[in-house]
Amino acid sequence: MTQFEIELVGMFAAVLTTAAFVPQVYKIWKSKVSDGISLSMYLSMFIGVVTWCVYGYLIGSPSVMIANIVAGLLQLTIIYFKLKFR
Amino acid sequence: MTQFEIELVGMFAAVLTTAAFVPQVYKIWKSKVSDGISLSMYLSMFIGVVTWCVYGYLIGSPSVMIANIVAGLLQLTIIYFKLKFR
Repeated sequence: MTQFEIELVGMFAAVLTTAAFVPQVYKIWKSKVSDGISLSMYLSMFIGVVTWCVYGYLIGSPSVMIANIVAGLLQLTIIYFKLKFR
Repeated sequence: MTQFEIELVGMFAAVLTTAAFVPQVYKIWKSKVSDGISLSMYLSMFIGVVTWCVYGYLIGSPSVMIANIVAGLLQLTIIYFKLKFR
């Protein structure tokens, strides 16, 4: 596989794992209920994705970097809703 | 940085993003309430982490592979609870 084809696989994975947060953002925003959401999960995950960005840079993987920047922004939104609607 | 040091950064990120699912598993198991959990989020994420494993293999990144195998197992547990406690 070429580098380009490999990054296509990575970007496909990135879209799926990143898009996964969108229904959760929508659900908590619409219902204004965040009881089932674990704040410690999202805080740990946010620090994790920041570290993944650094790792993606070190190994030169665009997919890892882009996926984690977008995921981090969505997680910040969920953390904001969790603190607002508790 | 050496390859070993880079993988240490990756494994640190992996522990954080993977451990992030543990409180959610515990919370849904203890409360038996899964109302705030989005099933579509976890299904999309599960297909995503399987694809990340393939990508990790293609770029030769142990951190990406290990992180996504463990995350996939935890996500399967959450999906199981969501279907059981609905």
